[in-house]
Amino acid sequence: MTPSQDVTPAPRTGAGSPSPVSLHGLLTHEPVVVTAGAELFAATLRAQAVRTEAVDWSPPMGEVTALDRVMADPRREGANQSAVARMLAAGAELVDVRPAREALGLAPDQFLHAGPPLAWERASGPMRGALIGAAVFEGLATTPEQAEAALAQGQISLDSCHHHGAVGPMAGVISPSMWMFELSDPVHGGRAFCSLNEGLGKVLRYGAYGPDVLARLRWMTDVLGPLLASAVRRHGPVDVKAILAAMLAMGDEGHNRNRAGTMMLLRELLGELIESPAPTADVAAAVRFVAANDHFFLNLSMPACKLATDAARDIPGSTVVVAMARNGTDFGIQVSGTGDQWFSGPAAVPDGLYLGGYGPSDANPDIGDSAITETAGIGGFAMASAPAIVRLVGGSVSDAIGATERMYEITVTENPAYQIPVLDFRGTPTGIDVTRVVRSRILPQINTGIAGKVAGTGQVGAGLVNPPAECFTAALDALAAAAPTWVEE
Amino acid sequence: MTPSQDVTPAPRTGAGSPSPVSLHGLLTHEPVVVTAGAELFAATLRAQAVRTEAVDWSPPMGEVTALDRVMADPRREGANQSAVARMLAAGAELVDVRPAREALGLAPDQFLHAGPPLAWERASGPMRGALIGAAVFEGLATTPEQAEAALAQGQISLDSCHHHGAVGPMAGVISPSMWMFELSDPVHGGRAFCSLNEGLGKVLRYGAYGPDVLARLRWMTDVLGPLLASAVRRHGPVDVKAILAAMLAMGDEGHNRNRAGTMMLLRELLGELIESPAPTADVAAAVRFVAANDHFFLNLSMPACKLATDAARDIPGSTVVVAMARNGTDFGIQVSGTGDQWFSGPAAVPDGLYLGGYGPSDANPDIGDSAITETAGIGGFAMASAPAIVRLVGGSVSDAIGATERMYEITVTENPAYQIPVLDFRGTPTGIDVTRVVRSRILPQINTGIAGKVAGTGQVGAGLVNPPAECFTAALDALAAAAPTWVEE
Repeated sequence: MTPSQDVTPAPRTGAGSPSPVSLHGLLTHEPVVVTAGAELFAATLRAQAVRTEAVDWSPPMGEVTALDRVMADPRREGANQSAVARMLAAGAELVDVRPAREALGLAPDQFLHAGPPLAWERASGPMRGALIGAAVFEGLATTPEQAEAALAQGQISLDSCHHHGAVGPMAGVISPSMWMFELSDPVHGGRAFCSLNEGLGKVLRYGAYGPDVLARLRWMTDVLGPLLASAVRRHGPVDVKAILAAMLAMGDEGHNRNRAGTMMLLRELLGELIESPAPTADVAAAVRFVAANDHFFLNLSMPACKLATDAARDIPGSTVVVAMARNGTDFGIQVSGTGDQWFSGPAAVPDGLYLGGYGPSDANPDIGDSAITETAGIGGFAMASAPAIVRLVGGSVSDAIGATERMYEITVTENPAYQIPVLDFRGTPTGIDVTRVVRSRILPQINTGIAGKVAGTGQVGAGLVNPPAECFTAALDALAAAAPTWVEE
Repeated sequence: MTPSQDVTPAPRTGAGSPSPVSLHGLLTHEPVVVTAGAELFAATLRAQAVRTEAVDWSPPMGEVTALDRVMADPRREGANQSAVARMLAAGAELVDVRPAREALGLAPDQFLHAGPPLAWERASGPMRGALIGAAVFEGLATTPEQAEAALAQGQISLDSCHHHGAVGPMAGVISPSMWMFELSDPVHGGRAFCSLNEGLGKVLRYGAYGPDVLARLRWMTDVLGPLLASAVRRHGPVDVKAILAAMLAMGDEGHNRNRAGTMMLLRELLGELIESPAPTADVAAAVRFVAANDHFFLNLSMPACKLATDAARDIPGSTVVVAMARNGTDFGIQVSGTGDQWFSGPAAVPDGLYLGGYGPSDANPDIGDSAITETAGIGGFAMASAPAIVRLVGGSVSDAIGATERMYEITVTENPAYQIPVLDFRGTPTGIDVTRVVRSRILPQINTGIAGKVAGTGQVGAGLVNPPAECFTAALDALAAAAPTWVEE
C-alpha cells in the first residue's frame, strides 16, 4: 500500500479486508452481528439492542458428502460444457405429421402418457380421464366404464412418452390413431414427436372425455392431421427454432404463451394449406381451428425443446438436467450423467389463478411433459419475455422478470438464439445444473396449466409450480455414486 | 414543533425548510452552489473548488406571455379533459376496402400526400418520386419525365391526406385507383382511410417508382384490394382497436413494429379469404404477400389512431395535439383548440440505423402521416412495449423504455385500452399537451422509416426523430390569441 492510498477519507464498515482504517472503525463503532439461518438468534440479539445483519445463506440441500464428491468430479466442468454446447447447437425442424402408430410404432393396445412411468393404480383423476377417453376414441371400449375396467385390468399397456422420443402436454396421452408432429434436429440427427394441440377447456389432455372431446379428436384425425401433413410435406421443413427465437420478442415464453408462435406457424404453412387439394370448407375449418387456439404451437415448442435436451443426454459426469416431467402423481427428472434413470418426488399443486367457479381445492397436482420447455431454458425460465403471462398464471410483472433472473443462478449457460429483449437481449438461462440447485436451494420455476383433479373436468386454471427438492438430492446421490473414487498415490 | 421532534439525530443537508439543525449544517459545512442552465458558470465555480449541484431546469420555450395567457385560460383544463376522454373512447373498426375514387371521391387528376399541404416546387425527392410513380400508375403520363412535367405544370392537383379524412405512411401518396382501408369509429361516427401497405424496400411510399413498384401496385389494385374487400364484407367489421391492444403485449408499438398486428389481422380474415370465390392461386398469393410484410398492419394502425385524434378535434380552449404529420419538407401539427390550422417547421433528418451501404447523407428529412400513431399515444410513445424495436431504429432497450416514460411528462392522460405489460400494465401516454411540451422542452418522440432523399431510391433506414420546437411555440401563440381576454371588474 502506497502512502497516498493510506489517506482514504471515509471510515469503511462491513465485510472487507482489514485495514488500519476499518480496524479503527471496529474500535469506535458498535459491533454488528451477522446472522444466517434461524431467526431466533437474531431476534434475541435485537431484543438486547444489538444490531444484526441477516444474510441470505442456507446450507445446501441433501448430503454434503454427496455434494463434495460430485463437485470434486474432475469430469463435471467439461461434461457440463459439452452438455450445454450440444443443447444450444441443436436445431428443430418440423418435417412431417403422421399417426402415432406409424411415427412411434404404437400397437393398437399401447398408450403413452406424460411424466415418469406410472401404473393405473397410482394415476390421478385427469390422467385416468385422458386414458379412458383415449380407450373409447381408439374403439378399445364403448363406454367410459368399459375403458376403466380394461385399463385397470392391464389390457392396455402404458409407458412414458419420454421413453419413445415423445412429449405430451398435461396428461400427455398418445394413442395409436392420434396424429403427431415429427421434428428433426438437423445438427445431431435426433427426432422428437408430439401430438396436435386440441385447444383449451374441456379437452382430453386435461382429463375430459365427453362426446365433444372425442368428436374433436376424430375431426383432428380425419381432417386436421392429414391436411397439416400434406402442407408440411409440400412446404418442406419448418424451422421451429427460428419461430421460438422470434416469439420471445413477441411476448411469448413458449410454454403458457404461444400466441405469436401459433400465428407464425400458421403464416408459414398458409400458402400450402390454401393450395391443398382438400375441400375448401375443410381448409377453412382447419385454419380457423388453429387460429382460434393460442396454445397450438406449444406442441411444437415442446418437441423442439426435447430435441435440445436429448442432445445433451448421456455425458458421463454431467450434472445437467435433461428432462423434467410430471404424470400428475410424481414429478421426475433425468440428468445427463445418469442415463435414463428417473429421480422422482411427489408432484406439487400449482399456485395460480382459477377459471370460473373453480378454486385450489379443485386442482390436481402438477402434470405434463411441458416442463421440457423449462428444461431447455424457456417457459418459466423466459417469463421476463412474456410479462403479460402474469394475467394467466398470477404474480406481478416484477415477479416474472425476477423468476428469469433467479434462473441464471441455477443454469450453466445462456442461449444466444433465445434472447430476452427487455433484459437487453440476454440469452435465456439454459442447462439446469443439479449442483447449483442443491447449493442455492433455488428450484426451477415452471409455469403450467392446472387440471381438475376429478376425471372428466378439464382445465381449472393456470399457475406457477416447482419440482420437489428430493428430485435433485436423489439425482445428486446417484451422480455421487457414479463419480470416480480418488486414490491416493 | 414539539420538544420530542427537536431531537432529530442526523444533520440534514440540501434543500428543505430551514430548521435549527439544517442551519447548523450550513454553518459547519462548505456551501454547495445549485446551478441551472449555462454550464460556463458551474465550470468556473468547479475550477475554484466550489461544489456545484446542477439541476435540470430550463426556461420554457416561446413567449412567456403567450404561455401565461394559455395557462390562465379557464377553459383549458376542462377542454383537455374532454379532448382526451373522446380520444380514449373512440373505437376503430375496419368496415370496408374500396378504391380511393369511391372512398374519397378523388377525381382522376387529384392526388393526396402526407403531411401539411405542399406544392410541387417545395417537394423533397421521395415525395416527388411517389407522385411521379402515381401519375404513371394512373396513366396520366407514360414516362417519369412526362409525369414530372405534368406535376410541375400543376396538371395534377395535390392536397393533404388529412384534409380528406385520410392518412398515408411516408410520402403517403393516394391516387384515385388505389384501394383504401375504410375504418369507422362506432362511438363518435368518424371515418378514416388509408391505402394498402406495399411492403418494404423499393416501394412507392419511399419514393421508388420503377417497373417492379408499379407492377406491384397494379397487382394490389387488381387482386389484393378486391379480395380484401370481399373478405371484410363477408366477415363484418374487424375490431382494429382490439388488435392494437393485443399487439402491445406482443412486442409491437404500432408504428415501426406491426408484426403481431399483421398476423392478427390475417388470422381474423383467413376463413373468409379461403372461402373466397377468387382463384385459389390469387388467394394464396394475397395471403403470402400479407404474411411476408410485417408492416401491413401499419396502414390500419394509422387510420385507427386518426379516428381517435379526430374525435378530439375542435374543442375550444384545448391545447391537445390532434395531428402530427410530415411531408418530407415541413413538419406540421394541428391542435384541438385551433381547428384545421397547421403549425409547421422544417422536418429534421432522423437519427437511426441504415440499410446496406446507405448512410446519413442519403437520408431525406422526416416524412409521413404515420406520426398520427404517436399523436394517439402509441408508436414512439409505446416503445417500452416493443424493446426489440431498438434493433431497427437504434438506441438501447433502456432508451426505449425511457422514451415512453418521458412521454408521460407531456401528455394529459394514460390509455387504459393500450397497456404496456413491462410497465406493470400502465396505459400508454396519451394526448400531447402543447403547454407541457413548451414548459418541459420535451418534444414528442417519434420513430420512423427513413426514405432516400433522391427520388426513386426507396427506404434507406429507420430511426428516431422529434418535431421542430417551433410547431409548438407557434401553436402556443395561436392558442394565446384565441384565449379569452381578462376584464377587470
